[in-house]
Amino acid sequence: MKWEVRVAYRRGVQDPEGETTKSALEMLGYGCVEEVRSAKLFIIEGECTREEVEQMCRRLLANPVSQEYEIRRVE
Amino acid sequence: MKWEVRVAYRRGVQDPEGETTKSALEMLGYGCVEEVRSAKLFIIEGECTREEVEQMCRRLLANPVSQEYEIRRVE
Repeated sequence: MKWEVRVAYRRGVQDPEGETTKSALEMLGYGCVEEVRSAKLFIIEGECTREEVEQMCRRLLANPVSQEYEIRRVE
Repeated sequence: MKWEVRVAYRRGVQDPEGETTKSALEMLGYGCVEEVRSAKLFIIEGECTREEVEQMCRRLLANPVSQEYEIRRVE
């Protein structure tokens, strides 16, 4: 099985990497950019159940205070 | 418009974050995990064309030596 976990900052929480990327793109001349948000992906392979992957998110992959996660089975 | 850029290490290139995450998950008792790969997502909002987003990837978002990128329009 293959799971994709997407971890992103919650709306309203600062996203320093997204902001820095936006500034850099503006400096490079991309005036079209209105907002950049960043997120992390973990692609986990193995015979893990959805419940186990949920637990991994809560225990290690995401910070529940500032981040939210989404789990998707891709294979 | 909303674009999603996914930047990942090329196959064969070391992925330190993926490896560290795998070790941490094993230490937490998740023996089911066979492999963890990490990737970065940038969600870019604005009236940018696909060609512009391609350029952003080549100029800033991805390192062509070690990373590959995938662009997807989501809105």
